[in-house]
Amino acid sequence: MSSIHPHARVDLPAGFRAAGVTAGLKASGSPDLALVVNDGPDHHAAAVFTTNRVEAAPVTWSRQVVADGRVDAVVLNSGGANACTGAQGFLDTHRTAEHVADVLGISAGDVVVCSTGLIGELLPMDKVTAGVDAAGAALSPAGHEDAAVAIKTTDTVHKVAAHAGEGWSVSGMAKGAGMLAPALATMLVVLTTDAVVEQADLDAALRRATAVSFDRIDSDACMSTNDTVVVLASGASGVFVDGGQLSEALTIVCSSLARQLIGDAEGAAHDIAIEVVNAASVEDALEVARAVARNNLFKCAVFGNDPNWGRVLAAVGTTRAAFEPATLDVAMNGVQVCRSGGVGEDRSLVDLDAREVHVLVDLHAGRESATIWTNDLTHDYVHENSAYST
Amino acid sequence: MSSIHPHARVDLPAGFRAAGVTAGLKASGSPDLALVVNDGPDHHAAAVFTTNRVEAAPVTWSRQVVADGRVDAVVLNSGGANACTGAQGFLDTHRTAEHVADVLGISAGDVVVCSTGLIGELLPMDKVTAGVDAAGAALSPAGHEDAAVAIKTTDTVHKVAAHAGEGWSVSGMAKGAGMLAPALATMLVVLTTDAVVEQADLDAALRRATAVSFDRIDSDACMSTNDTVVVLASGASGVFVDGGQLSEALTIVCSSLARQLIGDAEGAAHDIAIEVVNAASVEDALEVARAVARNNLFKCAVFGNDPNWGRVLAAVGTTRAAFEPATLDVAMNGVQVCRSGGVGEDRSLVDLDAREVHVLVDLHAGRESATIWTNDLTHDYVHENSAYST
Repeated sequence: MSSIHPHARVDLPAGFRAAGVTAGLKASGSPDLALVVNDGPDHHAAAVFTTNRVEAAPVTWSRQVVADGRVDAVVLNSGGANACTGAQGFLDTHRTAEHVADVLGISAGDVVVCSTGLIGELLPMDKVTAGVDAAGAALSPAGHEDAAVAIKTTDTVHKVAAHAGEGWSVSGMAKGAGMLAPALATMLVVLTTDAVVEQADLDAALRRATAVSFDRIDSDACMSTNDTVVVLASGASGVFVDGGQLSEALTIVCSSLARQLIGDAEGAAHDIAIEVVNAASVEDALEVARAVARNNLFKCAVFGNDPNWGRVLAAVGTTRAAFEPATLDVAMNGVQVCRSGGVGEDRSLVDLDAREVHVLVDLHAGRESATIWTNDLTHDYVHENSAYST
Repeated sequence: MSSIHPHARVDLPAGFRAAGVTAGLKASGSPDLALVVNDGPDHHAAAVFTTNRVEAAPVTWSRQVVADGRVDAVVLNSGGANACTGAQGFLDTHRTAEHVADVLGISAGDVVVCSTGLIGELLPMDKVTAGVDAAGAALSPAGHEDAAVAIKTTDTVHKVAAHAGEGWSVSGMAKGAGMLAPALATMLVVLTTDAVVEQADLDAALRRATAVSFDRIDSDACMSTNDTVVVLASGASGVFVDGGQLSEALTIVCSSLARQLIGDAEGAAHDIAIEVVNAASVEDALEVARAVARNNLFKCAVFGNDPNWGRVLAAVGTTRAAFEPATLDVAMNGVQVCRSGGVGEDRSLVDLDAREVHVLVDLHAGRESATIWTNDLTHDYVHENSAYST
């Protein structure tokens, strides 16, 4: 089902070590605990988190850790989200950070914690701490791929990406396959760079990069309680990189990872780009694209290779964006099925067999544009999500 | 799949005739054109329409017809929505009204037109006009059931309801099985009463009734281009009914029809009541209930009889309603699975086998409450909606 092909191996930039181990949190026995350590000399960091008001304990913890701009290590577990777990859940996150700090000889206040999996269950802390011990022992400059594998939940493939500057680089790993929605997804992302950067530049560059990548995928309109994207900068390359270059590099890596998330979304059979052009504002373009991306009837139609463009129009009509219904144009995979709000070219000309689908909505209301990537709604999506907790 | 049992026959109030015929608009050969005529003495009417900005030609037409408060007849067709059909679509609606007017000897400006079916196709007008002729010839005071059958699209059963006052009554028919969303659904509803009423009372009563019935069902978050609810008052009973009584009667009939729509929603296996209590405002309660009702992951879980309450919390967390995450309580079918934002009773105690599911969210933020009815997300929903236009 996935369009993601085996990718080239991605290694860590200079100054980092990582590991991925099996702590026994997953019933499957697959790797489920990862550790990424920044050995410096710099320890700059920035992060963005879910905007869900019901946030998991590790999110609450990690917000505080990142607030001072320094992070020495990130510990991530799959097999349990540690969300809606009350005071005990927060204590467990704290204890995990303390244990990582003990193993590495650093401060717990510099350890970001990320968890993913089922909501509403406490983590088996004996397994978590044993896993941290094992990961600490396995840390290696060659550990990026192992860590990326260990953060998978229902992902069918692990996701990594990289971008090389002159004498410096950015690497990234991501997990996420469902609950992909705006303001992030059910996703955890660790970005690493050996560039020498200003902390303020790192924070701004991360926000710019995520705004046009992870914030513009919307697989199923469901927002997670655990989403975290963290970037660590070691400065180990000795190469100073300004905010503009950094922003560009992070955007490239984040966009690749975001596209990989959509390509591996749970049960999806199509990856759909909803491109909205000639909008009065980027906000309008995003509102319209998101309305289409979230329309279950449209998503079912794409699954059935059915170019039911009326459902696109019906979705556009629910927005507050500037447009006149009588001037809307819609094309599907290059066929202008709707012209001036009415019937255009014959819908039977549209070929939806390929995994990638392009829907172009022309609002004729301005000069701005934006694209949201989404997926179709399939039997496999229903199947995979109908018995997750049992 | 449906929980709707065969209901008692519902007849028209005094002063009305109706018919349902086969015009040949549906490939299936099922009845597809209905006519409801108010013979008076009064011809008061009111209507509410979809808030979708992309509205079908018949909606544009009917808004104007109802503006003066007088309607003599309603013509409804299934087998084609006449939406996104441009100037020709509007001309076709106008021509349909003119033809009804000719057949009945009334003014086209007093004829409401409703269409439902595929968006983006012109109606075969020769079949429509021939169907109007046939319906005109078949008009009968006993025609309510036939008309209700003729407006079905993917409905598995026709929907009717009635409420009797002292010497007067209200009857209603509805169609709709998908695209059920706020600000109405893909639904057409004709309400008839023989009460003697003030036109202003009729309008206010209809708005009050729809606000707490059709506006509180949300099967799949998709808003239609054609939704219309129209009420006609003939005054033929000779019994004056004030606004309060009328509002109560219309609310009873609309609530029954709304519940029937959810019970017959496309492919659904569960009808789910999301009840939000102790909200700071009714608006907050509705926002929270709707967020849960629209969460695909939650809806899949219910289909799988999986009490995955974390998905309820994750949905609540996306809203702006007043609440503290640490005080949220959630019960599913009476089992308090989430207490104070954390783990409550064992989720395995929840029995989701029955079609009707009750989710109770306590915001602990005020004294208001509201309930939204929705459906689960099923294989059959995906199947029915993956090849509708082909």
